[in-house]
Amino acid sequence: MTEEQVEKRDDNVVFIGKKPTIGYVLAVLTQLNQGVPEVLIKARGKQICKAVTVAELVRKRYLPEVQIKDIKIDTEELTTEDGKTVRVSAIEIVVGK
Amino acid sequence: MTEEQVEKRDDNVVFIGKKPTIGYVLAVLTQLNQGVPEVLIKARGKQICKAVTVAELVRKRYLPEVQIKDIKIDTEELTTEDGKTVRVSAIEIVVGK
Repeated sequence: MTEEQVEKRDDNVVFIGKKPTIGYVLAVLTQLNQGVPEVLIKARGKQICKAVTVAELVRKRYLPEVQIKDIKIDTEELTTEDGKTVRVSAIEIVVGK
Repeated sequence: MTEEQVEKRDDNVVFIGKKPTIGYVLAVLTQLNQGVPEVLIKARGKQICKAVTVAELVRKRYLPEVQIKDIKIDTEELTTEDGKTVRVSAIEIVVGK
């Protein structure tokens, strides 16, 4: 039940990690083709540039009708395993038709 | 004369390169403190995350009255030394009071 709710909530979010760029591009394309009106691409730290590339590939190479709806930047505080707080930059890019 | 014009044109632009982040933060702060209303932070490729950090440090740590005015992402085509064309993601962040 909880798992299903979490999955549903994250339906229109693609969190950029360390995997190759194309996988995240496909994740965004899949959601848009399934009828989700907008997808939120989120990334932190060094993955921010990958998030930008994912958004650019989606709209320039694969789905020309898709536009950048919103871009926000922020600073997030993370707690490391030894209890220290580190600040890391983050980006949120909303793409949609 | 031309050199002066170029300098004048680039007065409110900080291009993010490979140097440490703090240098670019200081460049933005200097321009804002000299009375420039808005500064354009530009970066390509892997420097994009540094551009986000520079903007975040300027507004969250040093000048709380500064806001993010605009964020744009784009794809730029560069020609390498051997004549190949490569595409690279780019970001432009406008910060101002």
